[in-house]
Amino acid sequence: MTDYFVHANGLCETDRVGPRTRIWAFAHVLPGAQIGADCNVCDGVFIENDVVLGDRVTIKSGVQLWDGVRLGDDVFVGPNVTFANDKFPRSRAYQDRVPETFVEIGASLGANCTILPGLRIGRHAMIGAGSVVTSDVPAFAIVAGNPARITAYVDAAGHAMPPPRSVEPPPPGETAVVIPGVTLSLLHSAEDVRGTLSVAEVGPVIPFEVKRFFAVYDVPSKSVRGERAHRACEQFLVCIRGSVSLVVDNGHQRAEVVLDRPTVGVHVRNMIWSVLYRHTADAVVLNFSSQHYDRADYIRDYDEFLRLVMTTTAQ
Amino acid sequence: MTDYFVHANGLCETDRVGPRTRIWAFAHVLPGAQIGADCNVCDGVFIENDVVLGDRVTIKSGVQLWDGVRLGDDVFVGPNVTFANDKFPRSRAYQDRVPETFVEIGASLGANCTILPGLRIGRHAMIGAGSVVTSDVPAFAIVAGNPARITAYVDAAGHAMPPPRSVEPPPPGETAVVIPGVTLSLLHSAEDVRGTLSVAEVGPVIPFEVKRFFAVYDVPSKSVRGERAHRACEQFLVCIRGSVSLVVDNGHQRAEVVLDRPTVGVHVRNMIWSVLYRHTADAVVLNFSSQHYDRADYIRDYDEFLRLVMTTTAQ
Amino acid sequence: MTDYFVHANGLCETDRVGPRTRIWAFAHVLPGAQIGADCNVCDGVFIENDVVLGDRVTIKSGVQLWDGVRLGDDVFVGPNVTFANDKFPRSRAYQDRVPETFVEIGASLGANCTILPGLRIGRHAMIGAGSVVTSDVPAFAIVAGNPARITAYVDAAGHAMPPPRSVEPPPPGETAVVIPGVTLSLLHSAEDVRGTLSVAEVGPVIPFEVKRFFAVYDVPSKSVRGERAHRACEQFLVCIRGSVSLVVDNGHQRAEVVLDRPTVGVHVRNMIWSVLYRHTADAVVLNFSSQHYDRADYIRDYDEFLRLVMTTTAQ
Amino acid sequence: MTDYFVHANGLCETDRVGPRTRIWAFAHVLPGAQIGADCNVCDGVFIENDVVLGDRVTIKSGVQLWDGVRLGDDVFVGPNVTFANDKFPRSRAYQDRVPETFVEIGASLGANCTILPGLRIGRHAMIGAGSVVTSDVPAFAIVAGNPARITAYVDAAGHAMPPPRSVEPPPPGETAVVIPGVTLSLLHSAEDVRGTLSVAEVGPVIPFEVKRFFAVYDVPSKSVRGERAHRACEQFLVCIRGSVSLVVDNGHQRAEVVLDRPTVGVHVRNMIWSVLYRHTADAVVLNFSSQHYDRADYIRDYDEFLRLVMTTTAQ
Amino acid sequence: MTDYFVHANGLCETDRVGPRTRIWAFAHVLPGAQIGADCNVCDGVFIENDVVLGDRVTIKSGVQLWDGVRLGDDVFVGPNVTFANDKFPRSRAYQDRVPETFVEIGASLGANCTILPGLRIGRHAMIGAGSVVTSDVPAFAIVAGNPARITAYVDAAGHAMPPPRSVEPPPPGETAVVIPGVTLSLLHSAEDVRGTLSVAEVGPVIPFEVKRFFAVYDVPSKSVRGERAHRACEQFLVCIRGSVSLVVDNGHQRAEVVLDRPTVGVHVRNMIWSVLYRHTADAVVLNFSSQHYDRADYIRDYDEFLRLVMTTTAQ
Amino acid sequence: MTDYFVHANGLCETDRVGPRTRIWAFAHVLPGAQIGADCNVCDGVFIENDVVLGDRVTIKSGVQLWDGVRLGDDVFVGPNVTFANDKFPRSRAYQDRVPETFVEIGASLGANCTILPGLRIGRHAMIGAGSVVTSDVPAFAIVAGNPARITAYVDAAGHAMPPPRSVEPPPPGETAVVIPGVTLSLLHSAEDVRGTLSVAEVGPVIPFEVKRFFAVYDVPSKSVRGERAHRACEQFLVCIRGSVSLVVDNGHQRAEVVLDRPTVGVHVRNMIWSVLYRHTADAVVLNFSSQHYDRADYIRDYDEFLRLVMTTTAQ
Repeated sequence: MTDYFVHANGLCETDRVGPRTRIWAFAHVLPGAQIGADCNVCDGVFIENDVVLGDRVTIKSGVQLWDGVRLGDDVFVGPNVTFANDKFPRSRAYQDRVPETFVEIGASLGANCTILPGLRIGRHAMIGAGSVVTSDVPAFAIVAGNPARITAYVDAAGHAMPPPRSVEPPPPGETAVVIPGVTLSLLHSAEDVRGTLSVAEVGPVIPFEVKRFFAVYDVPSKSVRGERAHRACEQFLVCIRGSVSLVVDNGHQRAEVVLDRPTVGVHVRNMIWSVLYRHTADAVVLNFSSQHYDRADYIRDYDEFLRLVMTTTAQ
Repeated sequence: MTDYFVHANGLCETDRVGPRTRIWAFAHVLPGAQIGADCNVCDGVFIENDVVLGDRVTIKSGVQLWDGVRLGDDVFVGPNVTFANDKFPRSRAYQDRVPETFVEIGASLGANCTILPGLRIGRHAMIGAGSVVTSDVPAFAIVAGNPARITAYVDAAGHAMPPPRSVEPPPPGETAVVIPGVTLSLLHSAEDVRGTLSVAEVGPVIPFEVKRFFAVYDVPSKSVRGERAHRACEQFLVCIRGSVSLVVDNGHQRAEVVLDRPTVGVHVRNMIWSVLYRHTADAVVLNFSSQHYDRADYIRDYDEFLRLVMTTTAQ
Repeated sequence: MTDYFVHANGLCETDRVGPRTRIWAFAHVLPGAQIGADCNVCDGVFIENDVVLGDRVTIKSGVQLWDGVRLGDDVFVGPNVTFANDKFPRSRAYQDRVPETFVEIGASLGANCTILPGLRIGRHAMIGAGSVVTSDVPAFAIVAGNPARITAYVDAAGHAMPPPRSVEPPPPGETAVVIPGVTLSLLHSAEDVRGTLSVAEVGPVIPFEVKRFFAVYDVPSKSVRGERAHRACEQFLVCIRGSVSLVVDNGHQRAEVVLDRPTVGVHVRNMIWSVLYRHTADAVVLNFSSQHYDRADYIRDYDEFLRLVMTTTAQ
Repeated sequence: MTDYFVHANGLCETDRVGPRTRIWAFAHVLPGAQIGADCNVCDGVFIENDVVLGDRVTIKSGVQLWDGVRLGDDVFVGPNVTFANDKFPRSRAYQDRVPETFVEIGASLGANCTILPGLRIGRHAMIGAGSVVTSDVPAFAIVAGNPARITAYVDAAGHAMPPPRSVEPPPPGETAVVIPGVTLSLLHSAEDVRGTLSVAEVGPVIPFEVKRFFAVYDVPSKSVRGERAHRACEQFLVCIRGSVSLVVDNGHQRAEVVLDRPTVGVHVRNMIWSVLYRHTADAVVLNFSSQHYDRADYIRDYDEFLRLVMTTTAQ
Repeated sequence: MTDYFVHANGLCETDRVGPRTRIWAFAHVLPGAQIGADCNVCDGVFIENDVVLGDRVTIKSGVQLWDGVRLGDDVFVGPNVTFANDKFPRSRAYQDRVPETFVEIGASLGANCTILPGLRIGRHAMIGAGSVVTSDVPAFAIVAGNPARITAYVDAAGHAMPPPRSVEPPPPGETAVVIPGVTLSLLHSAEDVRGTLSVAEVGPVIPFEVKRFFAVYDVPSKSVRGERAHRACEQFLVCIRGSVSLVVDNGHQRAEVVLDRPTVGVHVRNMIWSVLYRHTADAVVLNFSSQHYDRADYIRDYDEFLRLVMTTTAQ
Repeated sequence: MTDYFVHANGLCETDRVGPRTRIWAFAHVLPGAQIGADCNVCDGVFIENDVVLGDRVTIKSGVQLWDGVRLGDDVFVGPNVTFANDKFPRSRAYQDRVPETFVEIGASLGANCTILPGLRIGRHAMIGAGSVVTSDVPAFAIVAGNPARITAYVDAAGHAMPPPRSVEPPPPGETAVVIPGVTLSLLHSAEDVRGTLSVAEVGPVIPFEVKRFFAVYDVPSKSVRGERAHRACEQFLVCIRGSVSLVVDNGHQRAEVVLDRPTVGVHVRNMIWSVLYRHTADAVVLNFSSQHYDRADYIRDYDEFLRLVMTTTAQ
């Protein structure tokens, strides 16, 4: 525990600090804090007692980590990033229990952003500089603004993805592969004086027997719906009104497509992690499922999904 | 053929006139016309040669029936109603073939309305006074305006129907009968911060295996879509956006319901005549069918539908 | 009863015809009809039995007057004007009682207009050519379109009024006379970052003690609201949102002003006939009254209003 | 003057009737009327005194031609078409001077339409059945509705034109010929984060020195703007916002194109008759001219234009 | 003045520091500053000379208090909160007079918010994390966003209030008490084809003689209007269009109701502190007053209001 | 290099510091940094190695200047202003090359604003407190918000300009001088039933031969278009739809006018710096140029423009 560095003008009152970690001038770490290896705690940082940092964490200047903050491995905290740990602060009115804030593995908090108390920032998420984060941020999401909204997703490696493709549907009767496990098909459509019709026959187009149907609508602007995978259930999605972005991930590849017309259907197999977001105000997304509702079929944690993919692939 | 009446100031040059028919002053009937029994041809009416009238037809004053007009039994033609038989008239430019105009049994043409050439006015339809009719009018429809649009439907007996009921869905898990063969059910719905969800499970809610799905949208204002019955195919309808009126008819009873929320589904059995109209601009109607597409399954003629119902019922 | 004229090719079966009336070729009047003096019944007109015409009435060609039509003195009926006397006509389905249609003194029905059954067209009203009249028309109103809507008003003598003036409010603290009995005043207003304020002090601006307040809103497009006079009650009107036209009439003069801003108030004394119309969709009109509600204070018939004005003036 | 036909039940009090004209039963022509050759005056038509008809005119039943109506050669008047000759009719209030209504050569008035007083219906115009015509109708225009609006144009021979083409601009640097004398070119355009730019260089794209520029906007819905030709002035048109239909006519050919994007310019040479109509509410049309304004350069009468074209071509 | 604490790595150059106050590492207080008792000045805080702090103030890390900042008792200043004291800063361009910023008793400034120069933050106000405050904040208000807008109010004790109730009007003829001194009543309303009418009779509904009327409209989004009490004047409020939130406070209780329909009136007695905010864009609020305008009748300072309530209650 | 001041609690590891510069407590300057004369580096500031500051720069507390930051003379950096130098930061993922951020002479960065990496803030620009700056800021611009948008411009001396004048066009036929080199003229306009026309004759109104025309539209909200001067080319601008602000600067005077009507043209001579901004969503700006496109004619750098003006004026 002696192979870490504290600047002559820094104060480090804990000794639970990992090797090769550096603590710089005017930084102040209280006795209860716990800091991993290879961390960089810049000038002027303040770290309270009930704080845990993983390995390879960077904390830039002007940051305070209050009681309740937990940072995973490889987290980046930009300059002047501000955490809060009281939702309704009043001077000298102390909380019974301080809410915990989790920043998960590989996430980055951009310069001068503000993180409200009790939130969870998902793995590899990227918080834009100057954002004010008021709700949980899903894994891989990029958020910006005040209040912060999801603007894009990063890929499985945490890098910026190319801009989403507007759907390029395949010729009638064929399907186009987005990533293995996800295919697009063109619905037959007809337009006449009585309006427009989009048709999907079960069999040729929807490749399973439909057991359940649901429609999603009135999604609040820029909210996220349905971040999950299914163990067994397959889905067929049509965006019948407005537009929506679909991110799909098979554990190896990620891609994003914009569904913006009622004549395109997407078949999503089981064991595909999928996210719907960027719903326009008028978006209506139809979902046909190959299974009746079964809570146990849902995987809602990305890490669990990854483990399952690895297991399956390994076999 | 002698028991009909012609006023002293009337001119009747045909003798194909049914018994008890009366032809009044300043009316003029050309030699080729054919008129049924118990008709009333009022003052100043002009009837050309290639014209056929059924029985019990009333023609009020100021009307001309040009070559090509065919009126079924019990038709009422109001005062100054105007037929045209040339779509693009130019003086002394004669057509090779005059288009035929059919006014079917029991229809009424309101005062001073205008009927463009070559149209078919369905049985028991009711044309509002002063309307300009520019397209076919389905059976039982009430139309008004310039150009004329469907504003309502009459019932199977040709009487005004009560105003359509906005849907009063049954309690969850139950169904409500609109008329025998047509039932409403409440879709399970949930609302949370991520938007709203309406769900229909195949089995409990959609009472057949889904073979085909289609969505109808961008219906021109006040157009009609899907006036027909199916021999075998059952349907399950949901109006997921906007609102639409559904008229259903089992050959004995008619009813009209307004579908204006995404949480109500309607199950329409086979051998039910159904009409969708009054689509709002944003209306999207989903249709789940129990059969793959089969042209032979459609009945598009109401009279044929009635005959089939009678046959079936008689057995 | 012999000093009227019937053309050699006309048929007149009644002798209740006033002096100097002329009935032209191919016209046909049934025995029960009653026609005033100095009328002109043009070629091809048909008049049924239960019909009454006042004096100096003109009926142009192509018109039929069916049972139930009553025309006041000085009425003009343009060519091919069409009356109907059955709201839901079916051939040979007769009504127990034919609805009456009243066209009051001095009204004019423009060429080829259509009048639905059972309506009352007020005195000096003017129906635009080609209109389809589906509801009662107030006295002095000009209507047009299909369906017909009020587009303007004529003056007390039945002539076209100048286009309504947009309100030209007087300087602060003064009032402007619209016609005797009706004055405009400017409300004090102030605008700051917190919004805009319009103020009326009782005393300086509202010249009576307020006993009753009401607001009128959600007026269907081009409907008319509040055609009436009050025996004793005074009113102060403000159009707080949108715009509305106010026609005022003291029995001698008529004027029309457009109220289109929330900073103008109109004081309308008792014994002023007033009409509000041309409400924009968002119009909200505030009304302060000097009396509690009293049904007996309302005069809703313009002729009665005129009689009362004359009586009062005579004294 | 004896070789025309009057039915035994018709009344014809004039003898100024052209050869081969037929006048049918219950029709009534007053002594002052003047009727050309080869006309057809159907049953029940009424023609007053101050009326002039050209040759080959057809008047269907139920029509009255009042004092002031003038019909050119080859005019077609459909059944129950209604003319009016008093803008503000009151019974027995006679006008000093009756307004004249002109229906020019080859025009057709559809069944039951209404023509307000004092209007001019241009040559080969086509009035839709049931229309209410409240303003002048340009030559070749097709109008419909209440009030009637221009919906399309017929071609130089009076036939229906194919639907207007949406502009198919040529490749950059080339021009496409619409009809001889009218060419389209693609404006260079660029789009970047600072907005979009459309550029036209004088010389390569605008093929004349610009002497005058004007912009036209806020055109009332479906109005017509600029029905005319220029003797010498050339024009270059760009529709920078919204869309508009351009009809061009060189005296031999007519064509119609829809200008609906700011990257297309149209070069219209001198001696081309052009019409702009179907402006969307937001349409802004830019016009670059090769001449300063000169009233004498405008040809506003289509017949004069045709004469000039013929003269020029003949040389 | 010796019983306060300064960390070994802190710099405190003033001795005007109250008992039990603690000043932590890397904090720096200049000689002119004045700090109350029981304060907590965290790591890295900088306090200039012309600064005054009350008792029990908390200043979290990363905060600077510049000349001109005055903080009342019990104020909470979150981490990285940033004050500015120059509206138009230029390097080395000094102001003649630094603007003062007042944060009143019990207010809380959330993490990383920015306070522009010269503002007043009212007592118990709550500034959301990350907000940018560009205008004065009323007492009890909760603000958020960039720029900061009022989103809610806290109650008299500074706690979050329950969400405002949408108005639950009492049965006709009765009144409902919101808090003592404030009652709701249902206006009589009627709806017919001519629109909707809401009526309030003076006497039964408006419980005082109306001396003054005003309407408020065009309120900028989320602005506040009329934060005040009246010594003697009573008010009757109706929100005739849109919706607005009304906070009422009698010195003992606070409540908030949403006025969102034109059929509800609120009677606010004298000596009630009231706030109108959350005006929708189309909101129009009518105000009937029992007094003519009198500047002296207004209480615009909440503390003065409280003192007056206490005095009155005590008597 | 010895006449600068470092506080006893400050750390300054470079000696490239100009005379009279002061470095305060808890500030830390790394060895590679270079600081001009008369600077003020407040408490707690951190300055990395690859940083250059001009003279008379102020850095308030809580600021870090990372590698790549370059600040011109007279720059003001407010408290807690946050720079970032990595667009996509990940902990311990270092960039090959750090992006440079330039803040030009005289610019001010308001309290707590955030500056994204790699941007250029133009001379005398003013960044509002709390802003998040995501793109380059032109010289003289005032920006605010998250993300920051241009809200106004300062004048040539860096002071706030008076609010822009809405255009007060001169009488017809005259021109009004905005600043020397920029004149307004009224276009002739006419309004009739066929729409509105705005006309500019070349010669009387556009004072040069037109060689090039372009239209700008679909400008993203609050973007800036065309910040530049021309050496030789003259321009004539018309805002035909919507509105836009035009800032003009002849090197001695600046002025801003709002172009908000299609009947006003602005003549901008050569050697005038001009900026168009505040485009409304529907804005369309027409530009007539006296020259064909020539890249060499554009001056896009304001400093170069100033030099050229000075040279020219001096001659």
